[in-house]
Amino acid sequence: MYIDAIAHYLPETTLPNEYYARLTGLTDEWIYGRSGIRTRTRARPDENTHTMAVEAVKAAMGRLPYPLKEVDLIVGATYTPYDTVATIAHAVQSNFTIPGARAILVSSACSSFLNAVEVVEGYFATNKSRKALVVISEHNSAYSDDRDEQAGHLWGDGAAAVFISKDGHGEKGLEILDINTSGLGHVGKSLEAVHLRPNNGGLVMPHGRDIFVNATKFMVTEVETLLARNHIALEDITYLIPHQANMRIITHVTQTLGMRDSQVIVNIEDAGNTGSASTAIALSQNWERFVEGDLIAVTVFGGGYSSGGMLLKK
Amino acid sequence: MYIDAIAHYLPETTLPNEYYARLTGLTDEWIYGRSGIRTRTRARPDENTHTMAVEAVKAAMGRLPYPLKEVDLIVGATYTPYDTVATIAHAVQSNFTIPGARAILVSSACSSFLNAVEVVEGYFATNKSRKALVVISEHNSAYSDDRDEQAGHLWGDGAAAVFISKDGHGEKGLEILDINTSGLGHVGKSLEAVHLRPNNGGLVMPHGRDIFVNATKFMVTEVETLLARNHIALEDITYLIPHQANMRIITHVTQTLGMRDSQVIVNIEDAGNTGSASTAIALSQNWERFVEGDLIAVTVFGGGYSSGGMLLKK
Repeated sequence: MYIDAIAHYLPETTLPNEYYARLTGLTDEWIYGRSGIRTRTRARPDENTHTMAVEAVKAAMGRLPYPLKEVDLIVGATYTPYDTVATIAHAVQSNFTIPGARAILVSSACSSFLNAVEVVEGYFATNKSRKALVVISEHNSAYSDDRDEQAGHLWGDGAAAVFISKDGHGEKGLEILDINTSGLGHVGKSLEAVHLRPNNGGLVMPHGRDIFVNATKFMVTEVETLLARNHIALEDITYLIPHQANMRIITHVTQTLGMRDSQVIVNIEDAGNTGSASTAIALSQNWERFVEGDLIAVTVFGGGYSSGGMLLKK
Repeated sequence: MYIDAIAHYLPETTLPNEYYARLTGLTDEWIYGRSGIRTRTRARPDENTHTMAVEAVKAAMGRLPYPLKEVDLIVGATYTPYDTVATIAHAVQSNFTIPGARAILVSSACSSFLNAVEVVEGYFATNKSRKALVVISEHNSAYSDDRDEQAGHLWGDGAAAVFISKDGHGEKGLEILDINTSGLGHVGKSLEAVHLRPNNGGLVMPHGRDIFVNATKFMVTEVETLLARNHIALEDITYLIPHQANMRIITHVTQTLGMRDSQVIVNIEDAGNTGSASTAIALSQNWERFVEGDLIAVTVFGGGYSSGGMLLKK
């Protein structure tokens, strides 16, 4: 299967570390040193996961090699929903009038993008879909607290729209060579380390250390799994797109794998942790950079826990 | 594919119409006449979608024809999450230590059970799974308002655990002959008719009439689609299990299809609208009733909108 087109939406407003420093007493230096974040995106009061999902799809319109109405499956992904009944998949189906599409939401927290792609793979295998739209939208600031010293300063908002077809259309796409996801609910402080309980305190991260230990472990494992089962050497990977949770996690994963910093695609410094949208946004931001033969590995880790990996080829 | 085992959990407490009558000025007669509900289940303060999901799986333990650890895919379904990061799939994986399973949450509101089964079908088609657990858990009362005259009295709480395998195991299962889902985000007042916005008023249903019109239409269509593509006559269907949103919707669907009341499996009178868990709970409650050759049609409609149908054979 193929990614035919991709686009993203990031809110215009970005908040600098100084904003959080004023609220929490932390310093710019401390925040940047611990997270790698200088600014993070912040949705306007009238924005939410629905509106950002719609903006991401709008941004893709000129790039799509077939009419949007040919999409027969819309898979939304978010853990920060504006509405849990009318999902972002339904919001997109409604806004663009796409009558012939199945519509579902998928979530495994920050792994959701890859779980959504794996769900698409299943629909392609049953021939119930040939052209899917995965729309990922995170409104972390709707549930996080800027005064939270542990994690309030980490979160960015944003969305991406990823058009995936079974057969490949257009000239600019990437082939999805392989996709894997893993459920890790049985690992470490899975259910407590980072959680979003809408009725109980929102989005918090009480066990950052447990996340660091497991994210660095499983994001590496996912890449190694992809390489092994596709008989590809690490040296053949052109770029790595890791989940943008924390620069220290990204650096640790990069070093463990033995990749060069220049191979690693990063947007956390400007956007913050945009949740499950982060790797899709990074892929969109770098779409024009890929050249024939490039191999791109995406690796993610999500609260709960989950992990996932995807291998792409230009 | 086959449902090998099923179980459900309903909280002990049920609330009678008189409870709502005292809060809203509505009468028992009015509530029953409009909804078909006499009592609805209510989770304890220490219960939530996680705990109810775990209870449903516990209830299935003696019935499962293979060790729980052989489950390789856990698909959760809910629109009333306790935690959107650590999903009910992860809670089950954690509680029962099921290391080899993928874990994801799926939602299309009250259609979620059937969307989850369709996602399982896809994982079976790619051979990434052979034994799946679909766990559906709804905690409507966490997000609804008992004083809401329009819909506060409709909602029940409950969960179900459905073990589905590609090959079929044990002697007591049902074969899933066919499964279909439809995204209806483009239809009627899809995004507004019923919605759950955790930060904006919770679970409300401002457009019940629009839901009635579309639910009665599409729940019929889903059954007709299943019959047509499986070359089965309506007369061959033994039982119908419709989504338990409202007895008037169920009666309308039954009459339009031309089925007898005795063929229709209902639990709304006692349990209320238990959301996406309702048909799975009804299937579990009637599991021992099915005999060789029985054909069972499940049809659902969800906010957003979505619809779905599933054809089962004993």
